[in-house]
Amino acid sequence: MNVHNLLRELQEPAKTRIVLLVADGLGGLPMEPGGKTELESARTPNLDACVREGVCGLSTPVLPGITPGSGPGHLGLFGYDPLEYRIGRGILEALGINFPVGPRDVAVRGNFCTVDESGRIIDRRAGRPPTERCVFACRKLQQIQIPGVEVFVEPVREHRFVVVFRGDQLGDAVNDTDPQQTGVRPLEAKALDNNSEKTATAVNRFVAEAARILAAEAPMNMVTLRGFSRYPKIDTMHAVYGVHPVAIAVYPMYKGLARLVGMDIADAGSSLGDQMESLQQLWDRYDFFFVHYKYTDSTGEDGNFAGKVEMIERLDAELAKVRALNPDVLIVTGDHSTPSKLRSHSWHPVPTLLWSPTCRPDPVTEFGESYCLRGGLGQFQAMYLLPLALAHAGRLGKYGA
Amino acid sequence: MNVHNLLRELQEPAKTRIVLLVADGLGGLPMEPGGKTELESARTPNLDACVREGVCGLSTPVLPGITPGSGPGHLGLFGYDPLEYRIGRGILEALGINFPVGPRDVAVRGNFCTVDESGRIIDRRAGRPPTERCVFACRKLQQIQIPGVEVFVEPVREHRFVVVFRGDQLGDAVNDTDPQQTGVRPLEAKALDNNSEKTATAVNRFVAEAARILAAEAPMNMVTLRGFSRYPKIDTMHAVYGVHPVAIAVYPMYKGLARLVGMDIADAGSSLGDQMESLQQLWDRYDFFFVHYKYTDSTGEDGNFAGKVEMIERLDAELAKVRALNPDVLIVTGDHSTPSKLRSHSWHPVPTLLWSPTCRPDPVTEFGESYCLRGGLGQFQAMYLLPLALAHAGRLGKYGA
Repeated sequence: MNVHNLLRELQEPAKTRIVLLVADGLGGLPMEPGGKTELESARTPNLDACVREGVCGLSTPVLPGITPGSGPGHLGLFGYDPLEYRIGRGILEALGINFPVGPRDVAVRGNFCTVDESGRIIDRRAGRPPTERCVFACRKLQQIQIPGVEVFVEPVREHRFVVVFRGDQLGDAVNDTDPQQTGVRPLEAKALDNNSEKTATAVNRFVAEAARILAAEAPMNMVTLRGFSRYPKIDTMHAVYGVHPVAIAVYPMYKGLARLVGMDIADAGSSLGDQMESLQQLWDRYDFFFVHYKYTDSTGEDGNFAGKVEMIERLDAELAKVRALNPDVLIVTGDHSTPSKLRSHSWHPVPTLLWSPTCRPDPVTEFGESYCLRGGLGQFQAMYLLPLALAHAGRLGKYGA
Repeated sequence: MNVHNLLRELQEPAKTRIVLLVADGLGGLPMEPGGKTELESARTPNLDACVREGVCGLSTPVLPGITPGSGPGHLGLFGYDPLEYRIGRGILEALGINFPVGPRDVAVRGNFCTVDESGRIIDRRAGRPPTERCVFACRKLQQIQIPGVEVFVEPVREHRFVVVFRGDQLGDAVNDTDPQQTGVRPLEAKALDNNSEKTATAVNRFVAEAARILAAEAPMNMVTLRGFSRYPKIDTMHAVYGVHPVAIAVYPMYKGLARLVGMDIADAGSSLGDQMESLQQLWDRYDFFFVHYKYTDSTGEDGNFAGKVEMIERLDAELAKVRALNPDVLIVTGDHSTPSKLRSHSWHPVPTLLWSPTCRPDPVTEFGESYCLRGGLGQFQAMYLLPLALAHAGRLGKYGA
């Protein structure tokens, strides 16, 4: 039986509140053999106090050995099987710039590139133009009109932009026009199923128009497109779990991921302090709060071990404000590991804390990867964390008599 | 989503090398309450050094409580779901004598037996004849010709032999002719689906001819057949993972299992020392090395606790040669447990070590069943070990953006 069908069947109303605090890329590695991870190195008195009262474990975002992107990592934490629900690159890019994608949309990631007189690509990133050049070029492309299809062109950064094709019967089974190499022409878009013919036609028309409009704009004189993707069919958290969720995130992509599963999006300001204020203000209006903290990931990606330690300590300092609100369930975890040593997302399991008055004690007294190994949650798939939260919040009835 | 489809999608090229060292039947039990297992009793300084730098855990070959044969045990370690891919008894017997089975073959295990004048079985094993009698009788059966089907008859040992029927449209849904009891006649072969009619006809003809040829050869005057099985449809490790694998095994069955998943088969000599030489010689030609060590299983099957301890210590002594080659990932595990106390394969989880520079430290400092309980790999299904190895070897890209 599908887990969501089960949870739908068992959901029970309760006036309880769940906080899911996601420290992006939380898990780490020691820099040297015998050393400690970032989380183990950080001084985290508030987290440790929760750990002593709560239960810990290590979550596997997707499957052992699989390194998730932000999309699958968050879907798992929201209780959606990341292998069942897939979010295409185009949709994720559109979410990332806060574009309101909807069910009639096919989104795609675009690159400005440079082609020579024969149309062959000589620079796949058009010399990495400054973002204001990207904005300017996108404005030009916004003139393009295609019968029967609405087209939106939005800048991202440097050579990157997003195109959204909106209309009926637009499939997303279209090959990338980006050949991923220089010395060749961009590829023609072809429909890979019957349902995507209209999309392929619109795409080729868009690219031809773009080439005409950009002809004199070298080095930004052509475009390539990749990752055609439709808005995924996905049930809301309210429908499946019966909660009223709100996302308190600073970065657009995480707001977009939250919107995908039907969360309301808070005005969360631009810092963790702002997010905490937002949490306090919204406390009486929602019962599920997704708080996203970015800087544990970005410092990890930069290979900045000390920076990541500091960002964990800052998060710890703000945690007292969450505790003061007296949530029924508080989860602190990450969507994946981002070890400073690897400067990238990784497959290593993620340290996870679940605090609630109904936790069974375990021997863990500090928050950290090696301590979590002895935790009562064991090693588990991330998608099961949400059912656990619902259970501790008194929101799941008994299965079977 | 199917794990293999995911791995296919994520595979990335890398110049890294993985060594999978399988100590057959590695897991054990103490002989007395309060005692140590074979592995815990063995002095294993080289394994322990790897354990301190690597990560440990306990693998479940199939499912909790399920005791695997060598086929499912190895398929799991090769990353194939042993419940999805099944290797029939006939195929396994054929692999075990190094018979080159192929996709047009149906293989079956045969027994010589003794029947009385009325055709009723009076000895199911024909008095366990010496193997040279088996060879002689098989040579007689090799005369049998069946129109449209090639037939191969090969001796195994004592009363046991293998028959392979090769042709087109040969299904394997045919009942055993072995009634598994004395006092009755061998059963007629019947097709259990339309696709196996031709096979059943060929089998009955083969059995009738065999009875005629063996009439004067009592006690080996009849045959029974069981475990009709086709060569399984199975993708190669190269196709699924992108690796170039080689098997360095002494015993034919393990070579056969490796060949099933597309490994090249090395000339591995007849001892672990020979195998190590082979490993050294092949180091530059492959990137995945399956090394099979038999004697931890055979001593366990003999109930020889001290012998199994000694075989583990011999393995440990050779491990330095593997380390000297500087693999990127080294795994030491078993395909199942074979406790000397039980003198047979068992369902107990298997101590497993994964060493690589990207391991997250865990508190395990010695290799052994009870130590592995505290390991960072936790308890896991054996089929996930290979994705983990690929991840540590830098051979898997990110899932989702």
